[in-house]
Amino acid sequence: QGILERLDAGEIVIGDGGFVFALEKRGYVKAGPWTPEATVEHPEAVRQLHREFLRAGANVLQTFTFYASEDKLENRGNYVAEKISCQKVNEAACDIAREVANEGDALVAGGVSQTPSYLSCKDKTEVKAAFRQQLDVFMKKNVDFLIAEYFEHVEEAVWAVEVLKESGKPVAATMCIGPEGDMHGVSPGQCAVQLVKAGASIVGVNCHFDPETSLETVRLMKEGLQAAKLKAHLMSQPLAFHTPDCGKQGFIDLPEFPFGLEPRIVTRWDIQKYARKAYDLGIRFIGGCCGFEPYHIRAIAEELAPERGFLPEASEKHGSWGDNLSMHTKPWVRARARKEYWENLKPASGRPYCPSMSKPDGWGVTKGAKELMQQKEATTEQQLKELFQKKKF
Amino acid sequence: QGILERLDAGEIVIGDGGFVFALEKRGYVKAGPWTPEATVEHPEAVRQLHREFLRAGANVLQTFTFYASEDKLENRGNYVAEKISCQKVNEAACDIAREVANEGDALVAGGVSQTPSYLSCKDKTEVKAAFRQQLDVFMKKNVDFLIAEYFEHVEEAVWAVEVLKESGKPVAATMCIGPEGDMHGVSPGQCAVQLVKAGASIVGVNCHFDPETSLETVRLMKEGLQAAKLKAHLMSQPLAFHTPDCGKQGFIDLPEFPFGLEPRIVTRWDIQKYARKAYDLGIRFIGGCCGFEPYHIRAIAEELAPERGFLPEASEKHGSWGDNLSMHTKPWVRARARKEYWENLKPASGRPYCPSMSKPDGWGVTKGAKELMQQKEATTEQQLKELFQKKKF
Amino acid sequence: QGILERLDAGEIVIGDGGFVFALEKRGYVKAGPWTPEATVEHPEAVRQLHREFLRAGANVLQTFTFYASEDKLENRGNYVAEKISCQKVNEAACDIAREVANEGDALVAGGVSQTPSYLSCKDKTEVKAAFRQQLDVFMKKNVDFLIAEYFEHVEEAVWAVEVLKESGKPVAATMCIGPEGDMHGVSPGQCAVQLVKAGASIVGVNCHFDPETSLETVRLMKEGLQAAKLKAHLMSQPLAFHTPDCGKQGFIDLPEFPFGLEPRIVTRWDIQKYARKAYDLGIRFIGGCCGFEPYHIRAIAEELAPERGFLPEASEKHGSWGDNLSMHTKPWVRARARKEYWENLKPASGRPYCPSMSKPDGWGVTKGAKELMQQKEATTEQQLKELFQKKKF
Amino acid sequence: QGILERLDAGEIVIGDGGFVFALEKRGYVKAGPWTPEATVEHPEAVRQLHREFLRAGANVLQTFTFYASEDKLENRGNYVAEKISCQKVNEAACDIAREVANEGDALVAGGVSQTPSYLSCKDKTEVKAAFRQQLDVFMKKNVDFLIAEYFEHVEEAVWAVEVLKESGKPVAATMCIGPEGDMHGVSPGQCAVQLVKAGASIVGVNCHFDPETSLETVRLMKEGLQAAKLKAHLMSQPLAFHTPDCGKQGFIDLPEFPFGLEPRIVTRWDIQKYARKAYDLGIRFIGGCCGFEPYHIRAIAEELAPERGFLPEASEKHGSWGDNLSMHTKPWVRARARKEYWENLKPASGRPYCPSMSKPDGWGVTKGAKELMQQKEATTEQQLKELFQKKKF
Repeated sequence: QGILERLDAGEIVIGDGGFVFALEKRGYVKAGPWTPEATVEHPEAVRQLHREFLRAGANVLQTFTFYASEDKLENRGNYVAEKISCQKVNEAACDIAREVANEGDALVAGGVSQTPSYLSCKDKTEVKAAFRQQLDVFMKKNVDFLIAEYFEHVEEAVWAVEVLKESGKPVAATMCIGPEGDMHGVSPGQCAVQLVKAGASIVGVNCHFDPETSLETVRLMKEGLQAAKLKAHLMSQPLAFHTPDCGKQGFIDLPEFPFGLEPRIVTRWDIQKYARKAYDLGIRFIGGCCGFEPYHIRAIAEELAPERGFLPEASEKHGSWGDNLSMHTKPWVRARARKEYWENLKPASGRPYCPSMSKPDGWGVTKGAKELMQQKEATTEQQLKELFQKKKF
Repeated sequence: QGILERLDAGEIVIGDGGFVFALEKRGYVKAGPWTPEATVEHPEAVRQLHREFLRAGANVLQTFTFYASEDKLENRGNYVAEKISCQKVNEAACDIAREVANEGDALVAGGVSQTPSYLSCKDKTEVKAAFRQQLDVFMKKNVDFLIAEYFEHVEEAVWAVEVLKESGKPVAATMCIGPEGDMHGVSPGQCAVQLVKAGASIVGVNCHFDPETSLETVRLMKEGLQAAKLKAHLMSQPLAFHTPDCGKQGFIDLPEFPFGLEPRIVTRWDIQKYARKAYDLGIRFIGGCCGFEPYHIRAIAEELAPERGFLPEASEKHGSWGDNLSMHTKPWVRARARKEYWENLKPASGRPYCPSMSKPDGWGVTKGAKELMQQKEATTEQQLKELFQKKKF
Repeated sequence: QGILERLDAGEIVIGDGGFVFALEKRGYVKAGPWTPEATVEHPEAVRQLHREFLRAGANVLQTFTFYASEDKLENRGNYVAEKISCQKVNEAACDIAREVANEGDALVAGGVSQTPSYLSCKDKTEVKAAFRQQLDVFMKKNVDFLIAEYFEHVEEAVWAVEVLKESGKPVAATMCIGPEGDMHGVSPGQCAVQLVKAGASIVGVNCHFDPETSLETVRLMKEGLQAAKLKAHLMSQPLAFHTPDCGKQGFIDLPEFPFGLEPRIVTRWDIQKYARKAYDLGIRFIGGCCGFEPYHIRAIAEELAPERGFLPEASEKHGSWGDNLSMHTKPWVRARARKEYWENLKPASGRPYCPSMSKPDGWGVTKGAKELMQQKEATTEQQLKELFQKKKF
Repeated sequence: QGILERLDAGEIVIGDGGFVFALEKRGYVKAGPWTPEATVEHPEAVRQLHREFLRAGANVLQTFTFYASEDKLENRGNYVAEKISCQKVNEAACDIAREVANEGDALVAGGVSQTPSYLSCKDKTEVKAAFRQQLDVFMKKNVDFLIAEYFEHVEEAVWAVEVLKESGKPVAATMCIGPEGDMHGVSPGQCAVQLVKAGASIVGVNCHFDPETSLETVRLMKEGLQAAKLKAHLMSQPLAFHTPDCGKQGFIDLPEFPFGLEPRIVTRWDIQKYARKAYDLGIRFIGGCCGFEPYHIRAIAEELAPERGFLPEASEKHGSWGDNLSMHTKPWVRARARKEYWENLKPASGRPYCPSMSKPDGWGVTKGAKELMQQKEATTEQQLKELFQKKKF
């Protein structure tokens, strides 16, 4: 059954987790460029990660084609030891995802993301050409559906959806925005409306913000769609990092990005709360983005097992709410084998010299961080704004 | 070249990271029992993790035989879907490790760890029999050397070393203790002396404590050996979690163990500091235990690259001290492409409702946590002590 | 010169600090009732605190008549050892304030605050009668001007201003609200407009929120007045506690209120930042409320000394920005004798087992604390709202 | 009854709190020099603070003669507006203390503290002359007993005790040291032994460390006395700041000293725990030093009211364990009117950008802060040590 059949039937569809962060830690992706040439260089590593997400309960395997548009690969080309063609990267990604999907009950989704062409103000034709080049591969390899993800500007996301719709396959579209909207100030509700009008059947957010913030953004999208009397399925694939302190552009502006984010990593219990809230909000395509490891995806599947009626394969290695601790030799560890314990735990960081919140760099701060905003306005914002208008970064 | 030839020649030997925690997150090991039947059930997952550590710079691949003694597997047997024999688990572990070691320049080390037999007061003969059963496999598979690791009682560790020495292969021995010594109060210095006298050529610590604390323990071992005019190589394989607040039995007693440790995960920069301090202390076998992911091992290899003269393979995907951020589009992210930035960053947890330190459960608290100690003395310590003497848990 | 002459001439007028909290710590006021019978019981203690604020730079001494309406004293009467009449309390307060004001260059302001009569839904006539009873004393004792302060409902504040205006003396009015407005949802801008229309020449906020939040509220009041083309002087007297985590009803709902607020106490440097921001915002009547000790008021006077051209008397015992540390015997303490040091210090709490933020009790939470809100909505909000409508608490 | 009669009879004697910090905040003492010329300049302020401590339950009023030796006043003379003679400062201090003591049931204790003469290596005769000059005033004014307090070197403390003993009055002696002992490395136990042998009837610690650490130091003193088969009464007057992170020289080396200590201020509940622990340890002279405000002293008196059989006067304005909140209008505030609530509260700092622990400046760090120690050893310790030996600072 296809993605829309499942969603239309009210099924919960579980997405996969974050590839670039997980494979960076495993030694196959370079932070900074974040390009996916590993599909060609080290297919076994990509395959293994797909397999882990599948075991964890994912119903959708996204091709590892993030930042795999030709302009991006070119732009970052110097990071790739031997030049590998855009086509080869995308083809290998499709092959690997399909191979693993066949090991279970998963759909393969071909994915495109924002392009340097747009950010450097190339025109619509040129930007669309970049998407079309990837789409050609997805069609040749016959993926099950398509996802336009990680867009900071709804204008570019709309262009991506328009291209992907040419295929006739279902299209999902997620933006990496928070409650304040896209980088040009378009609200989440308006973004959702534009994406649905462009042809997306599923809309939502991915990346850049923590689960809590992302759900608030999807809630605003839902309100926007309702106000416009439009219908679409909702989707969320947030970070697996706590980011209550980040600004408009999300975790990239946090001083810890990307090599000091460890203390922010969410626990499996945080994810169970996220899964429940997402479900209660009406979201039915629930997955994760950067920071989501297989055990985080499994936590979604475990939280929603009552609704779905089954556990994922990897739960054979996991006791619900820590119940496998009930046989521990120490009585105080046995006492942790219960839901209340883990639900209420406020985990310590073991870092008494560190603060709990950071002030984001950059200018794209939330209203909540007014102080910084005011500082920036007084000093460099003008320059930054000009830079922004020219470069759209 | 064998392990002793390398160490005798003054080479730095890099160990691998933690299998049980990494594979738990990937969905192949169950927290609680922590047994390694995945070597038989999912060899591809074990193989991939070995490969990642090899790429990250590990010179030693330890067979994934932690808690693979027959008594332990039996004791935890109910967790294993289909009964898998102790012999099969150990054999598969050796085969996988050797296969990957051959992909690079690494040694295979067969490992044994503490047994339920000892903790339930079985006698020396019976405990030694458990080790010997695993050793038989290691000899048949011809591992390069042997490691007795994760012992809380030096008495049992000595028995393990005695058995392993029967093989004629070099033996390393590490205990999971902190500066206060083993569970019977034997100091780190005395532990080291007894292990060397029993035949260990390499001694040190693994697991239970953070890098800082573990290095202090090895320093005490070194002092003990010097006082006794004994010589041995030093080794450290600590946790990749910050645990300044844990007591005598280490991180197991922290309320976050094992499912809420995320905010404590160390960064790659913490590991570079650890590697440098370990080196300065004279330790030449430097690796990690629970929590160490491939990128942590790579950080050891990168920090000590000047001394070793080369970088590991996985560094092709990593710029030293974040230098790959220098091409980022945002100026404030580019500003992070330097050593001073990451060395001095105090990463925020994004968890303003959480404390920085926990009070450990259990009775095995450090002198520093006097308050808790006094509490426990007044209430349950006596019972716990009696339990301890009977059960040795 | 009167208060309006000073403000009209562009002078900065410095208010005094918080009496109930300071005298509670000194042993003369009871937390909970917070009534000011100390003016009769222990006039020397009240006099000394007035004197300290005067020395610290205060230009206004408020009569210690907080919660000194007859209905409040009656309501809390059981806390007063011997029954002391409302009139005696108010008269003594005026006498003490005048006595100390005459020691320097300060004005005496008679103050009224919110009444139990209003909260228990008594009608306008009855509520106004309570204010008029206090006003009679203020007229008899000939105070210099009047302040209606600590009102959660603008309706009651307007009634108070109407009564006080009958005197012909200048009237200031401050509400204990945050950016979300009064307890019936009237915005800060609307509150300011209503107060000025009722006759207040000076409007602003006092109590309930930290300096940062209070300035934001005054900023919204200023916007409201501008939009309505009304003119008034602005005033701020915030808490001396950091309360970024509190909800609509301010610090009372924080779990630390009132006996565990110590870690939140602001430093003198925080106050210097507050004074500068208040000044930059156009506020010219700048003082403090609960938590403000004499050294906090002195910090306002020191920060604004360049504008005012003089330092307060108590600055003879204080070096600007710690410069009196320059003679310390220890070089690292001498290094603290500079502005940059204190401006940038992030002071540690010495409380590693405590969090940095609390979740407020009660239902009056900010939008920022959505989670709690949702919880409360689901459970007790309805009851609480009904209670609110009935009781107006 | 004299101090020894009371202690010999098993009575609990409550000391007073800290004058220099409290009067600095009130505007009468300058941080840095910390000298007590306020006894002459502003006697009403000193009198009022004495009175507040008396009302709070203090049985001993110490003359405000801290740092009032002639060499210190001279050394700091430039801070005193008009030159005030050492004799006048000390005489006024005695007069004020006696006047207030007569308002209740309190003893007056004349106090001496460490001298610049000792620190600049003047000989024993000269140092003793400084103490004798103050003692002459205490004898003329007939104080009830004498306290030598705030000594970092036991050698000087012994000299002080020897001088004070010439008077024939009882002598108490407290050092401002932690568990690591005095600045020359004399252990707390040895310090206590030397002080008792010199003639002190009461020994203990004051200042520099938090209640927890100070009690540990007194415990070590008690052990030392027991080992030496000596008898003396025990006394503690710690800081009212949390300082788990400070080094050998205590809070002076913390980066927050002296103008950023607010987040470290202890609550009244912390003090109740301290009072109980002090009592359980056998200490019967229990007071406070820097940071102790009247309400902290009251907390000692309230905690030990069951043993003493009465409450202090100021408790008429304080409900035990917050019971005066039971009449609050809000149900969630009423819920705070109980012991369990305040005993278990982990108060938030409201400072999410601040850490919980600081690294002390200077070289005098505890063993716990090894890292810093090692840093300092490698760089400036030698210079500092030399400085130390020459200057004894």
